[in-house]
Amino acid sequence: MARGVKKAKKPAKKAAVRRRPLVQGYGREAGFPISLAMRAGDYVFTSAQGDHEFDPAMVKYDARGLVVSDGNTLPSRTVADETRSALRSLDQALRLAGCTLEDVVDASVWLRDPRDFHEMNKAYGEFFKKNQPTRSIFRIDFMFDCRVEIKVTAYKPR
Amino acid sequence: MARGVKKAKKPAKKAAVRRRPLVQGYGREAGFPISLAMRAGDYVFTSAQGDHEFDPAMVKYDARGLVVSDGNTLPSRTVADETRSALRSLDQALRLAGCTLEDVVDASVWLRDPRDFHEMNKAYGEFFKKNQPTRSIFRIDFMFDCRVEIKVTAYKPR
Amino acid sequence: MARGVKKAKKPAKKAAVRRRPLVQGYGREAGFPISLAMRAGDYVFTSAQGDHEFDPAMVKYDARGLVVSDGNTLPSRTVADETRSALRSLDQALRLAGCTLEDVVDASVWLRDPRDFHEMNKAYGEFFKKNQPTRSIFRIDFMFDCRVEIKVTAYKPR
Repeated sequence: MARGVKKAKKPAKKAAVRRRPLVQGYGREAGFPISLAMRAGDYVFTSAQGDHEFDPAMVKYDARGLVVSDGNTLPSRTVADETRSALRSLDQALRLAGCTLEDVVDASVWLRDPRDFHEMNKAYGEFFKKNQPTRSIFRIDFMFDCRVEIKVTAYKPR
Repeated sequence: MARGVKKAKKPAKKAAVRRRPLVQGYGREAGFPISLAMRAGDYVFTSAQGDHEFDPAMVKYDARGLVVSDGNTLPSRTVADETRSALRSLDQALRLAGCTLEDVVDASVWLRDPRDFHEMNKAYGEFFKKNQPTRSIFRIDFMFDCRVEIKVTAYKPR
Repeated sequence: MARGVKKAKKPAKKAAVRRRPLVQGYGREAGFPISLAMRAGDYVFTSAQGDHEFDPAMVKYDARGLVVSDGNTLPSRTVADETRSALRSLDQALRLAGCTLEDVVDASVWLRDPRDFHEMNKAYGEFFKKNQPTRSIFRIDFMFDCRVEIKVTAYKPR
């Protein structure tokens, strides 16, 4: 930037920044052989997040094998609460990898009960006001005791 | 840039085109805080598409919360029809972002009824004749009144 | 390459290696219009893999349309066996495209029965010891007669 030097005849060569491939996992969760976020090149992947705890010794299943309780002691909360909690967890994971929810380009949402769609949709919209990510949404059965899970992919070139 | 030097014999250097990161959403759907397609660098993501309409005021659920009707007034149609419709919708979304189904590299397919597999598989194959994308397929419950949904990722460097 | 010219004082210019976009599918499965792996730029996508065979003429469904049998003649095996088999199949597919499980950055796991979680989780962990991929896991119904399916995305710049 300081360009007042007199005899600088040759244009300064730009440093030949070599594009370095970067693969780096961030964040851990006890008992799970996973990262919470993973940067790979210009993209950051996340593990799906839901507002749940999980105590393997306390999980209860029904006759079909569906999770009735995962041993968590979380207070009663709405789907909107769970949606915001999941998105905040994703934001935290993304920040470990150098980006935020603003860099999200694609999202997947899963609901245990389709009747929760409108409440989830409204809370979700609070987080994505512009350049909204693509999104796919399905009803599914969770491994954990929660009503919504969300996974995102972010794009943040270094 | 202004290089009015006289004896410019040497071939003009190619403009050093800086690779510009591009993140851009395309397409909207009323009531959904999403884009139908999103370009992020060399990839284009899509939201899952199914052959359905959706009138929030008219959705009917069964006792388990599954969608019985989403208020649409679409005519009766086969799974092959629905598959082709979903892929055409995806192609339209991709075109907004500067690519087509020919650039698809990965796909996900969801069916409401596994018995629809063969009919879907055949119709799907009509659209992907060469360099066929990877694909994953599952039975799932939809938020909407349709029998198949499809989501794709395309690769189209600018 | 022939550089025997005498007065070559100027440092030889590096060959301007043009970054070539590469899209290439690898591997086939009879009856499926898909690739088992697909390289697109620096990433390699896979189709979901499970430890199953599939004979379209022999598939049996229950009243809800769920797959009871897919005609395979595989021996009885544990979820850990199936997990390892799926991951080995994914490794084979990735190798066709020039990478391995070590290059995986994101994974999705689906289980037919949530009670299989711990056994799957332990076997899965054997394959991912460091820089562990992000992972999402759900209960789902399969098109095929197996208890676990896995899909991965790898990052391996050329």
